[in-house]
Amino acid sequence: MNKIAILTSGGDAPGMNAAIRAAVRKGIHEGLEVFGIYNGFQGLIEGKIEQLDAGSVGDIIQRGGTMLHSSRCPEFKTAEGQAEGLRQLRERGIEGLVVIGGDGSFRGAQALSELGFACVGVPGTIDNDIRGTDYTLGFDTALNTVIDAIDKIRDTATSHERTFIVEVMGRDAGDLALWAGVAGGAESILIPERPHDIKEIISRLRQGTGRGKKHSILIVAEGVMTGHALAGQLKEAADIETRVSVLGHIQRGGSPTGRDRVLASKFGARAVEVLIEGKTGVAVGMRNHAVIDYPLTEVFSRREGMEDGLYELSKELSI
Amino acid sequence: MNKIAILTSGGDAPGMNAAIRAAVRKGIHEGLEVFGIYNGFQGLIEGKIEQLDAGSVGDIIQRGGTMLHSSRCPEFKTAEGQAEGLRQLRERGIEGLVVIGGDGSFRGAQALSELGFACVGVPGTIDNDIRGTDYTLGFDTALNTVIDAIDKIRDTATSHERTFIVEVMGRDAGDLALWAGVAGGAESILIPERPHDIKEIISRLRQGTGRGKKHSILIVAEGVMTGHALAGQLKEAADIETRVSVLGHIQRGGSPTGRDRVLASKFGARAVEVLIEGKTGVAVGMRNHAVIDYPLTEVFSRREGMEDGLYELSKELSI
Amino acid sequence: MNKIAILTSGGDAPGMNAAIRAAVRKGIHEGLEVFGIYNGFQGLIEGKIEQLDAGSVGDIIQRGGTMLHSSRCPEFKTAEGQAEGLRQLRERGIEGLVVIGGDGSFRGAQALSELGFACVGVPGTIDNDIRGTDYTLGFDTALNTVIDAIDKIRDTATSHERTFIVEVMGRDAGDLALWAGVAGGAESILIPERPHDIKEIISRLRQGTGRGKKHSILIVAEGVMTGHALAGQLKEAADIETRVSVLGHIQRGGSPTGRDRVLASKFGARAVEVLIEGKTGVAVGMRNHAVIDYPLTEVFSRREGMEDGLYELSKELSI
Amino acid sequence: MNKIAILTSGGDAPGMNAAIRAAVRKGIHEGLEVFGIYNGFQGLIEGKIEQLDAGSVGDIIQRGGTMLHSSRCPEFKTAEGQAEGLRQLRERGIEGLVVIGGDGSFRGAQALSELGFACVGVPGTIDNDIRGTDYTLGFDTALNTVIDAIDKIRDTATSHERTFIVEVMGRDAGDLALWAGVAGGAESILIPERPHDIKEIISRLRQGTGRGKKHSILIVAEGVMTGHALAGQLKEAADIETRVSVLGHIQRGGSPTGRDRVLASKFGARAVEVLIEGKTGVAVGMRNHAVIDYPLTEVFSRREGMEDGLYELSKELSI
Repeated sequence: MNKIAILTSGGDAPGMNAAIRAAVRKGIHEGLEVFGIYNGFQGLIEGKIEQLDAGSVGDIIQRGGTMLHSSRCPEFKTAEGQAEGLRQLRERGIEGLVVIGGDGSFRGAQALSELGFACVGVPGTIDNDIRGTDYTLGFDTALNTVIDAIDKIRDTATSHERTFIVEVMGRDAGDLALWAGVAGGAESILIPERPHDIKEIISRLRQGTGRGKKHSILIVAEGVMTGHALAGQLKEAADIETRVSVLGHIQRGGSPTGRDRVLASKFGARAVEVLIEGKTGVAVGMRNHAVIDYPLTEVFSRREGMEDGLYELSKELSI
Repeated sequence: MNKIAILTSGGDAPGMNAAIRAAVRKGIHEGLEVFGIYNGFQGLIEGKIEQLDAGSVGDIIQRGGTMLHSSRCPEFKTAEGQAEGLRQLRERGIEGLVVIGGDGSFRGAQALSELGFACVGVPGTIDNDIRGTDYTLGFDTALNTVIDAIDKIRDTATSHERTFIVEVMGRDAGDLALWAGVAGGAESILIPERPHDIKEIISRLRQGTGRGKKHSILIVAEGVMTGHALAGQLKEAADIETRVSVLGHIQRGGSPTGRDRVLASKFGARAVEVLIEGKTGVAVGMRNHAVIDYPLTEVFSRREGMEDGLYELSKELSI
Repeated sequence: MNKIAILTSGGDAPGMNAAIRAAVRKGIHEGLEVFGIYNGFQGLIEGKIEQLDAGSVGDIIQRGGTMLHSSRCPEFKTAEGQAEGLRQLRERGIEGLVVIGGDGSFRGAQALSELGFACVGVPGTIDNDIRGTDYTLGFDTALNTVIDAIDKIRDTATSHERTFIVEVMGRDAGDLALWAGVAGGAESILIPERPHDIKEIISRLRQGTGRGKKHSILIVAEGVMTGHALAGQLKEAADIETRVSVLGHIQRGGSPTGRDRVLASKFGARAVEVLIEGKTGVAVGMRNHAVIDYPLTEVFSRREGMEDGLYELSKELSI
Repeated sequence: MNKIAILTSGGDAPGMNAAIRAAVRKGIHEGLEVFGIYNGFQGLIEGKIEQLDAGSVGDIIQRGGTMLHSSRCPEFKTAEGQAEGLRQLRERGIEGLVVIGGDGSFRGAQALSELGFACVGVPGTIDNDIRGTDYTLGFDTALNTVIDAIDKIRDTATSHERTFIVEVMGRDAGDLALWAGVAGGAESILIPERPHDIKEIISRLRQGTGRGKKHSILIVAEGVMTGHALAGQLKEAADIETRVSVLGHIQRGGSPTGRDRVLASKFGARAVEVLIEGKTGVAVGMRNHAVIDYPLTEVFSRREGMEDGLYELSKELSI
C-alpha cells in the first residue's frame, strides 16, 4: 500500500478533525502518501481530492466540525455512483480508504469493500449508536454540551421553581439523553430503549415537590417524542405547567473534549494500521478499554439493548 | 434608616446573586440590618422574609439565577396587594427596599414609592432594555452564552456548507441579537428596532456564496418573528434551505461573567447608598461609564432607538 | 446493615460530590440511614458526623470540590487514631464506611477493615494512579482543564512563534500529562513512566521549526522535573528560549465533566451495594468498561506500566 | 487614500483578530486596498506584507491571538529601522497604517506619524493600561479567564479550608487584579495603584476565619510582588500557611468574549475611518460609552489613578 485517502461523511461530530490529523500523520509516518477527499462520498464522485502533508492538518485537533467537510450522498447508494468513486480512487493510484462517520457512512465503505477496494470505518457520531464499539467519536463532547445547557437551565428552574423539559438528540439511541440526564440530576429520563409511563413521571414530579425540591428537569430523547409533545401530555394528564428547551444543533459542535481528541487520535492511527495490515471491510472501535477492529457487517444488525444498569440507577438517584 | 430589604422579581438574570451579595454586605457595612424577601413581590405579600448576615451571601457571587428566587405577581398590581406588602415591611420595621429586576418589577417599586415607602430599583434583565441605563445585569453573560452557541453551530454550518438561523431572546429590544450577531460574524441580523427586507437578506446570502463562503448564519430576535417563520419565508421566496436553532432558556442561566459580577457589585452597593441618602423612586444604572441614579419614571417611557451605528457596521463587516 | 457513613479524604477531585450524592441516595433507596463525616479521617476522630437525607445532597452533582471537606490526617496512621475513629462510628451504630479518595486514603480504609470494620474505597484523584482500576474520579475534568489551558497558551505561542513549556500535575503518574499532551498536540511529553532524552526533545523542536511550525508546546509532568528546570536544560544545551506555565491548583477544581459525574454516580452507588453484600476491605473501580470491586490490598503494590501505546503514538502524531 | 496596511505588535491580546477583520472589511467597503503586515514592526522592516481580501479574514473573529503574528522589535526604535519601514510602505503605495497593540506599539506609530506617515493606534492589551481610553481590547477576555481560574481554585480552597494566593498579570496597572478580585470574591487585593499593609491583610484573614469562612483568596498583581513573595511575608509575619497559583500565560489567550469582539469590531472600523478623514498620530478608544479618537501624545504621560471607588468597595464587600 502506497497511497490512501480519508473522507468524512454524514452528520459532523467533534473529534473528526483529530481523527483526520491522526490518520494523515500516521500514514506519513508509515511512508504513505495521504489524500483528503472533500465533501464525503459526493466529493469522491466529483474528484475533489487533494494530497495532505503533515502541516495541512496542523492546528486542527482542537476544532469542531470537519476540515474535509461532509455531506449526505444518495448517489453513492447506486452502483453507478460507487463505480465512479472507485474510478476516481484508482485513477490516482489510491489503494485504501478511511471513512469517518456513522453507520450510514459505513454502508458506503462496505459497498466499496465488496467491490474489492480496501476500506476501514472510523465511528464518528455524537449518538454513540454504532454496534460493535463501546464508543463513537463526538459523544463525550456532545454530552458535556448538553450538561452545560442543563446546568444553565437549572439556574432558571430553581429561581422560578419550575419544571423544565430538555429535548436532546437521539433518534434510535438514548445514550446521550441517559448520560446527560444522570449527570444533570434529571428527575426523569425518556429514551427509546425503555418504555415510559406518563403516570410514573407525574408521580415522581409530585414526590420531588413533596420533599421540597425547588425545580425539576425532565430529559427526553427526540426519538421518543418532542419536548413539546411531552409538555402537552403533562398538561393534559395532570395540569402540570412546564417550559421546553430544544437543544438542537448546538449539540453537534464545539471544540472536542480531551477524551474525544485522544480516542480520535487512537482510532485514526489504528485505521491506517488496519489498511497496512491488508484488512478491508472492517471498522475500528473500542471494546473493553482497548482499540479493536471488527467486520463492518457486525454494524448492520439491530443494536444491542442497554445492559449496564445506568437507566435503573438514574431512578434510584433522582429521588 | 435601620432596616432594609431586598427582593428579586421577574425573569432571572445572571448577576442577580452578585447584586444581592453587594447590597447585603454594603448594608451591614453601613450598620443596617438587611432582610431577604423570597419569591419576589409574591413572597413580600406572603411575608416570606428573613434576616441575612454576611455569611448568608457567601459563595454566591459566581452562581446564576437568584438565591432569593423570583416570581411574577399579578396580585401586586392591585392596591390590596401593595397595601399588604407595605404592611409586611412596616410590621418588621423595614424602611427601605431594593428591587432587582426588569421594568415590570420597577413598576412595583414605583407603586410602593408612591405610597411613601423608600424604594430603589436595580436593573437586572438579559434584554438590556431598561430606559435610562446603558447596562442591565445579565446582558453580558447572555451575550457570551449566545456567542458560544453560534460558535458551535458554525462548526456544523461550515462542515455541511449550510445556512443556519439562530433565534435569540428579545421581544422589544434587539441588543442581544445585534451584539451576538456582530460577535458571531452573522450574515444578517433581524432586530425589532430596524425594518428588515427579505430580498436584501437573500441577496446577501447569495453574495456570500458567490465569494466562496462556506456557511451563513442569520440571527433573528424573537420580537421580529420566530426562527421557523424566517426559514419559511426564505424557502418560499427563494427556495433557500435553512436549519433553525431556537436557543431558548439557556440564555438566562449560567455563571455570570466578570463584567456582570463587578457591575452587579457596584449596582447593589450603590442601591443601598441611595436609600441611606434618603432617595426613593429611583433606579441605579450606568451612564457614561459611571454608576448613577435617576427617577424610575424615566424608565416608563418609550425606549430610545439604537443610535450608536452598530447595526449599520454589522452590514459592512459581514461582506 | 442499617447505618453507613461517607467521608472524603486527601486531595479533592471533581466528581467527589457526585459520588457522595450517589452513595447517600442509593443508601436511602436501600433503606439505610446515611451519615456524612466532615473533614476526612480528622473529622472522624473528632466526631464531626451528621445524618444526611436525600435533599442534603441536592444541587451538588455539578459542583467541584467536596461538600464533606477533606484533610490529610497523620493521626489516623496511628493505632490510637484508628481506635478513636472506630469508637466514634460504633457509638452511633454505624456499621459500614465509604472512603472517597486516593491511595493514601485507601490505607485508612484498609486499617479500619483490618480492625473488623466494613470499609469500601472509591477512587477519587485527578492523577488516575490507583492500581486495579482503569479510572479514578476527577481525571477527565482535570484533563479538560489542562487542555483548555494549552489551547489558550497556543494562541500566544502561535502569535509570537514561541516555544512553551506547560508543567502539569502528576508526581508518580503521567496519565494526565500524556493524555493532555496528545489532545493538545504537544511536540514532546515528559512523564515519569518513560525515560526522556533532552537531545531528542531538541531535535524534535528543530524538526518542527524546519517544516514551518509556528509554535511548539512541551508538556512535563511535575514528577519528572519542574517546567523551569526543563527550560534551564533547553537553554543550556541548545540556547533555546522558552516560556514556562505552571498550571498548579486550577487542575483540581471546576465543575465535573459528564463522564466524571456519571462514573461517580456509578461508583458511589456500587460502593453502597458492596457494603450491603457484606464485603469489606475492597475498592470499587472500572475495568473493561464495567464497574467492579476488588481487594484494597491490590492497590498497595507498584503501579503497572503504561502499556497501551499512547506514548509511542504521541511521537508519531507530533511530527 | 487608496491603500492602507495593518499590523499587530507587542503582547497578543484576545480581540486582535476581530479588529483586523473589521479594519480589512471596513477598508474594502470604503473602496481601499488593504494589506497585512506579518510579525509587527519587525515584519514591516523585512517587507512581510501581503494584500488581504474579505475572505482572508473569514472565520477569525472567534480566535485568540493574532493571525498577523506579533513581535517586539528594538530595531524599530532606531531612525534606521523607521526609515526602512517607511520605505517598505511607500514602495507599495501604502498611505496609511493601523497599529494594534499596547503603548509600546503606539510609540512606533507615533514615530512614523512624526515622519509624515498617516498612523492610527488601536488599543489592544489585556492590561487595560492605556491612557485616554476606558477600554483596551483583551481585558474582558482576560478578566473572565482569571475568574474561571479563581472559581476552580475556590473549590479546592473550600474543600481543604485553605488560603490561596493568586498572582495575576499587571506590571503597572491593577485593573485586571481588581476586577477579578471583586468578581471572584477575594478577601484582599493587592494592586500597584494602592499601598498595601501586610498587617491589614492578616487581620482581614483572621476576621474571615472568625466569622466561619471556609476559605480565603488573595489576589496580587505581579507589579506589586510575586505570589510566592506574599506567601513568604504571611508565613513570616503571622505563620499563615498559603498555597500559591501563578496564572501566567493562560491570561493572554482564549477565544475573545462578546464584548471584546464587538468593541474590536468598532475600534478596527473606526481606525480606518480616521485614516480616511485624513487624521494621523491618533489612537481610537472608548470614552463615556462612545468610540472616540484622540492624539497619541496623550497616551505617553503618566497614567491616571483609579478613581471609581472599586478598590474601596472591594474591601466593604469582602467582609
